[in-house]
Amino acid sequence: MSWLDLQTVMHRVSDINAASAVLSWDQETYMPSGAVQSRSEQLATLTELAHHYMTNDEAQRAVSDFASYSETLTERQRRIGQTFIKDFDRTKKLPADLLIEQARTASLGQDAWKKARQQNNFRLFKPFLERMYQLKREEALCLAPTEHLYDALLDVYEPGMTVSALIPVFSRLKAGTMDVLARIGPLQARVSDEVLYKTFPRDRQLSMAQNIIGKLGFSDSTGRVDLSAHPFCTSFANTDVRLTTRVRENDLRSCLFGLIHEAGHGMYEQGISSEMSRTPSGQGASMGIHESQSLFWENVIARSEEFWRWAFPQLRQTFPDQLANQDVSLFFKAINSIKPSLNRVEADELTYNLHIILRFEFEKALIDGSMSVSDIPEAWNASMKELLGVDVPSDADGCLQDVHWSIGLMGYFPSYTLGKLYAAMLWNQMRKDIPDIDRKIEDGSFSDILNWLRFNIHDYGRTEDPREIIQRVCGRPLTETDFMEYVGSKAQHVYGF
Amino acid sequence: MSWLDLQTVMHRVSDINAASAVLSWDQETYMPSGAVQSRSEQLATLTELAHHYMTNDEAQRAVSDFASYSETLTERQRRIGQTFIKDFDRTKKLPADLLIEQARTASLGQDAWKKARQQNNFRLFKPFLERMYQLKREEALCLAPTEHLYDALLDVYEPGMTVSALIPVFSRLKAGTMDVLARIGPLQARVSDEVLYKTFPRDRQLSMAQNIIGKLGFSDSTGRVDLSAHPFCTSFANTDVRLTTRVRENDLRSCLFGLIHEAGHGMYEQGISSEMSRTPSGQGASMGIHESQSLFWENVIARSEEFWRWAFPQLRQTFPDQLANQDVSLFFKAINSIKPSLNRVEADELTYNLHIILRFEFEKALIDGSMSVSDIPEAWNASMKELLGVDVPSDADGCLQDVHWSIGLMGYFPSYTLGKLYAAMLWNQMRKDIPDIDRKIEDGSFSDILNWLRFNIHDYGRTEDPREIIQRVCGRPLTETDFMEYVGSKAQHVYGF
Repeated sequence: MSWLDLQTVMHRVSDINAASAVLSWDQETYMPSGAVQSRSEQLATLTELAHHYMTNDEAQRAVSDFASYSETLTERQRRIGQTFIKDFDRTKKLPADLLIEQARTASLGQDAWKKARQQNNFRLFKPFLERMYQLKREEALCLAPTEHLYDALLDVYEPGMTVSALIPVFSRLKAGTMDVLARIGPLQARVSDEVLYKTFPRDRQLSMAQNIIGKLGFSDSTGRVDLSAHPFCTSFANTDVRLTTRVRENDLRSCLFGLIHEAGHGMYEQGISSEMSRTPSGQGASMGIHESQSLFWENVIARSEEFWRWAFPQLRQTFPDQLANQDVSLFFKAINSIKPSLNRVEADELTYNLHIILRFEFEKALIDGSMSVSDIPEAWNASMKELLGVDVPSDADGCLQDVHWSIGLMGYFPSYTLGKLYAAMLWNQMRKDIPDIDRKIEDGSFSDILNWLRFNIHDYGRTEDPREIIQRVCGRPLTETDFMEYVGSKAQHVYGF
Repeated sequence: MSWLDLQTVMHRVSDINAASAVLSWDQETYMPSGAVQSRSEQLATLTELAHHYMTNDEAQRAVSDFASYSETLTERQRRIGQTFIKDFDRTKKLPADLLIEQARTASLGQDAWKKARQQNNFRLFKPFLERMYQLKREEALCLAPTEHLYDALLDVYEPGMTVSALIPVFSRLKAGTMDVLARIGPLQARVSDEVLYKTFPRDRQLSMAQNIIGKLGFSDSTGRVDLSAHPFCTSFANTDVRLTTRVRENDLRSCLFGLIHEAGHGMYEQGISSEMSRTPSGQGASMGIHESQSLFWENVIARSEEFWRWAFPQLRQTFPDQLANQDVSLFFKAINSIKPSLNRVEADELTYNLHIILRFEFEKALIDGSMSVSDIPEAWNASMKELLGVDVPSDADGCLQDVHWSIGLMGYFPSYTLGKLYAAMLWNQMRKDIPDIDRKIEDGSFSDILNWLRFNIHDYGRTEDPREIIQRVCGRPLTETDFMEYVGSKAQHVYGF
């Protein structure tokens, strides 16, 4: 079979997956409440079809024959083919029964998790979480051999990432973070973020945020914004990228920074080369690289003082009463205040990583069997005290706060922190490559920045893995130093130590 | 293979078609403009998959084995199986090449039609229309033998309907219509519909119309309303029915009656028995029966004086200035004014059928070869003069006004008129079955009416064909007399002859 035949296979699977993504997007945005069951049946059928066409004899032949002509392909085509083969191999290794059982457990587990969280009763969730960890261990064993069992799960979200590579990075990151926290401690009262929790009318929040992401470069001829309970970005093609946001009347951050974050994901998807359309390479390189894009725009750009020199006048014009006593400098400090807290999602840029390190250590231990599910609540509370110095008042606010484990996303959490580390490395490289970058941000001119990201990251889609991307763009491998320098000097500026 | 195996086949095809329908709905409502190509690729893949799973060996075996166990099934199950077999046979008869060529010609033809209409130049459209008629003739030949070639096309939209059955009905309908028109002629000035073309703010029009369809019985837990350029109703399950509408600031009819019309389609879909979910029986019996539901609610109910005795106070409260000098009786007359015009879509209840009869006669002649495509413009103008007494100023306002032919919907037009005839027959039967029905409408109480339709029509889905439905419910076959009596007495009341 030829390259054309392989393309046919890739296009079919990709179109089915895109259809699934449209149905899922619709479910979160517009679907009437009564349609839950019919929609889940439709999605199950599409999932089954995608799996079938990903693994059937035609796909097998297309994969087997690839070597016979791959030398005649361009480098990009070769990588597109290799990405498909990687997915094919992975899918082939996982028995359909295991995937079905995981999906079933995820569905029951998410329900149980919701109830457990509502009722603050970990025991309601415990049997489902035990089963899910058992199934994830089975998954890891199917994908073995790896040095650590957990490496197989990491690889799903961050290809090539391993426990051995993460441990030293996370360990230095933890130490550095504790250092900065210790310096801020006595100065905590210098910064107030109260202004963010006044009352901000919903429609004005939404149109302000939409206006800003347009200025950053999110294209509304190839994307759109809708409302949903939980914000997300999904893509059906590089010409069809959907963001969602939520608006909280008493929290200016939720819609504004939430939408900038999703737009960071969205601009990545919009920037992937059309050469990769309808192939498994036509998506982000990894969850970590994806997060590097969203966090870059949300934090590095939109939480910078330069950015607000440009954006603050518009913001104050939109909310004149609420921001009457604010100026750029005060507002910059408010959105960069640092304070250890219970909740990962609400955490600041610095302490966020401690939440991730905790989860990474738990997941690793739960997969390799050195921790059992029943140990979680007590161990969680002890770790929170040790890492963040906070007392966890209830499991609902502690080990039950995240949906991830209930639906089997073990191995996902490290991506969030990797995204921050990558973003800081990219930022340092970008500052070298773009003269006058601070001035450009102050002028509200973001096209050079977006073009740099498009040229260096977006265009490649999933044809390179994260290590290759970071090495190529930054000339060195993953490190936490850029992030610590970035976040440390920001903290110094905000808290004046 | 067993009934369960046949169900698996039906469910798979039905889920794929539902996914296509979601993607098409999204395309008309929310999809960003840049996504046209990727969406058409996704839809093409789903269409190919649905065709494959509808006709593959598994489907063939499921069909062949049906007879071996069909006696063990309930009557409903048997009919569900038979509906699938009917679709299977039809699909098998049509070569894939022909369908692909039709789709290609439709896509090019629709583009050419748009240009031709814009530029008022029939010649731009002519070659595509010739090709489409050629392809529809081929299609009819594949489905033959039928008495008239056109019967095969009618059967797609109105199973069992034939030219021989339609000709006498349409001929009496035409004569009766001309009679009523002759009576109205000298009295034309007695009714003014000017009030409908004042300025009505969009948001108030939309919320008024949404409120009314909710009262009629359209459920918003299993359906929703969005905006689109052309109003339509689509259904992904009986629990997920989507309506769209458009709002014209200077035409009160467009959103109000348009949305009631679509809600009539929607309530039909919401009322289909769940026993038929995920099978080809889980949809309306025919386009004609579908139109009978939408036109029943739009015209019989929502253009009645009883209805406006209930609804007019709300309407005037919504638009106090615009309706200052109106009362129920004047408003009732305005929305029932009758006047021959050039445009099918804008036509009143009575003259609408003349537009359909013209198209029916043209399609029949173009399919059997007694008319050629190049004859259309001249013949169109002559027929419009003869039937409606109007001079056609341009092809754009004449034979180029409808999209149908460009996309190959030959055989569809008669459904609109059949819908009117069925609706009048159902109305007469309903009046016998529901005591005090006029009073109920005046009270804004529609549940008995909706329940009657659910019980007699909706619940059956596509397990009966239109002839069976009308015979079972009304105790007699299709006739135009009920409609002529209904529309004649309304005209008499409105124009006072």
